[in-house]
Amino acid sequence: MRDVAIIGVGLNPKWGELWDKSLRTLFAEAALAAIEDAGVDHVDSMYVGCMTSGLFAGQEHLGSLMADYLGQPGLPATRVESACASGGAAVRSAFYEVASGASDIVLAGGVEKMTDVGGDGATYALSTAADADYEVYHGVTFPALYAMMAVDHMNRFGTTSEDLANVAVKNHNHGSMNPAAQYPFEVTVEQVLGSVMVADPLHILDCSPITDGAAAVVLCSMDKAKELAGDRPLVKIAGVGAATDTIALHQRPDLSWLGSTEKAAKTAFEMAGVGPDDIDFAEVHDCFTIAEIMVIEALGFVERGKGGAAARDGLTALGGKIPVNTSGGLKSKGHPVGATGAAQIVEGVTQLRGEAGDRQVEGARRGITQNMGGTGGSSVVHVLEVV
Amino acid sequence: MRDVAIIGVGLNPKWGELWDKSLRTLFAEAALAAIEDAGVDHVDSMYVGCMTSGLFAGQEHLGSLMADYLGQPGLPATRVESACASGGAAVRSAFYEVASGASDIVLAGGVEKMTDVGGDGATYALSTAADADYEVYHGVTFPALYAMMAVDHMNRFGTTSEDLANVAVKNHNHGSMNPAAQYPFEVTVEQVLGSVMVADPLHILDCSPITDGAAAVVLCSMDKAKELAGDRPLVKIAGVGAATDTIALHQRPDLSWLGSTEKAAKTAFEMAGVGPDDIDFAEVHDCFTIAEIMVIEALGFVERGKGGAAARDGLTALGGKIPVNTSGGLKSKGHPVGATGAAQIVEGVTQLRGEAGDRQVEGARRGITQNMGGTGGSSVVHVLEVV
Repeated sequence: MRDVAIIGVGLNPKWGELWDKSLRTLFAEAALAAIEDAGVDHVDSMYVGCMTSGLFAGQEHLGSLMADYLGQPGLPATRVESACASGGAAVRSAFYEVASGASDIVLAGGVEKMTDVGGDGATYALSTAADADYEVYHGVTFPALYAMMAVDHMNRFGTTSEDLANVAVKNHNHGSMNPAAQYPFEVTVEQVLGSVMVADPLHILDCSPITDGAAAVVLCSMDKAKELAGDRPLVKIAGVGAATDTIALHQRPDLSWLGSTEKAAKTAFEMAGVGPDDIDFAEVHDCFTIAEIMVIEALGFVERGKGGAAARDGLTALGGKIPVNTSGGLKSKGHPVGATGAAQIVEGVTQLRGEAGDRQVEGARRGITQNMGGTGGSSVVHVLEVV
Repeated sequence: MRDVAIIGVGLNPKWGELWDKSLRTLFAEAALAAIEDAGVDHVDSMYVGCMTSGLFAGQEHLGSLMADYLGQPGLPATRVESACASGGAAVRSAFYEVASGASDIVLAGGVEKMTDVGGDGATYALSTAADADYEVYHGVTFPALYAMMAVDHMNRFGTTSEDLANVAVKNHNHGSMNPAAQYPFEVTVEQVLGSVMVADPLHILDCSPITDGAAAVVLCSMDKAKELAGDRPLVKIAGVGAATDTIALHQRPDLSWLGSTEKAAKTAFEMAGVGPDDIDFAEVHDCFTIAEIMVIEALGFVERGKGGAAARDGLTALGGKIPVNTSGGLKSKGHPVGATGAAQIVEGVTQLRGEAGDRQVEGARRGITQNMGGTGGSSVVHVLEVV
């Protein structure tokens, strides 16, 4: 298998309710930024991660659409979906195409246009990441599912609402240093606990927002990347892992353990030949504050049941032992569901290049990204490192 | 890049309006058939091709769902979409995962459950393969788009309604020998021309049906496949090609030339080191009769403008120079949109193993499959051959 580098990254200048940008313009903007950043004059193939543009925008066939709107009709282009892990899954598919030797330069990104939705609305569109027949039919929504996971974690490990709130406080603090963030304001524990309850114990400030946005990266065979790199630090995809779990939460033996994340991380760590102690920072899937707590346990950064204390104790803040979600995470940066996984890798590369400005992790040499679909029905993990 | 074989194929026993089979049971049935046919006790990863289960069934996140319902929660599983070329695109992604060396045995399939659709119905769901903003918004549907392509072909090349009808006659004849076909009855030219007009010049018997169905194949590294093959002929994926075109028909300089098919075939032929004259049979995307005519031109089996005569003259019938759609094609076998590309490969392998019964192409050693999204906004081509 060939080594694969990331030679370009791109994001919309700002995520949020972007009324003047459509599905296709969102993706094209991020993709062109990544191509410009890479300094290449072509790509050989592309992958588009998107969760449910059919329901959000009445548009499937995104490979054709996006190649077309990048001015490249003809280019092989494939859409990849794994609910909110679609962006990570798109990068993984692109990785294999480059690693196989079939293509040298491949664009991979993700996009979601969530605010134009008609019909049954965003909550219904997002619910299609859960089990339509055995969860959604009975009225369950994602805030409710994560609330059940949170209650389980609280009952078993003593995790508190303050612990959850501290994740939001930390990520909004990080996001205040990210010009692209949808909600780049700071919040306090009191504000989180005083915000409206969505699904007990999750307040609205425990939840990631509805966001329009896109992100893209350019993958390249390592040999070619070395020719193109110039003086810039070269970032390698050292490990790739993906795994699934039961799609329905009620089928799992343990409601607050993310088996798909554990398995995907194991695969990625083994491929990279490293473990949690070798990681300098992490971008993880904090769709709800409880998710970040469960994820850092499944990734092995803290022991089972100790995730609640991490944000409170400063372990996962900038300057802490393992900074988590320096971008602001889904919570502050925003969560255009199909784009999130690709955006995590954009942040990872930005950190490893030392280009993260005020939110730079000093001396960052190796990072991890963890992108998750549904209640953890799927996870995709990438280990990135400076060559 | 490693060589990749197909060691197992599976299909539902019968395609059609399958009221007793849901999205998940359709896929699981085909996947288990493929795994049993392969004789393996596990797969390392899987890909699910599906066009728009969000709109048809209120269900995305098919990787997680299908791994779960195959009793394999944990397995890396990714859904791939390229409109009606989703099945072919899923096999292509699986090919790269095996070719890269990351996995040895990968399941790839496709599925669509089309008959349970609520909301705006199947015509709307299918329209999401076209350009939502510049085609669908103005009321265009797929029969209308292909009708415009047919009119262009007729005006420029003298193709007649009888030429179109002969494609239906041939494919229904082939389908009458396929136990899995949704409509395994014969039709006559008179019946086609006398059937209700859907979009002039396309009668309803020029159109493929709405179908529930799934198909799956098991890919394997060639080295391992040789260990597993026993006495059975071993089928190699000799060539893989994918390409796109403008998603909107009106953006193309030529309304009846399938540029994405031409480009995808060129890539696949070059990889396999063969050309159209080296192919013994083809499974192509006859979503409408005019599509088969355009496809055999783009694949180079006949000259531009000569596609209309092919079925009439017996060139593409069983026993002809290049039998096309021995399975019955989308027209007779049915067209569960996300499954079709995988099912074409099932037929290709069945022919190359000499297991096609009454519809066997004598001495078949090499075949081609061509799967298409929208009006040719994307195409995926595979060249298959006996090792």
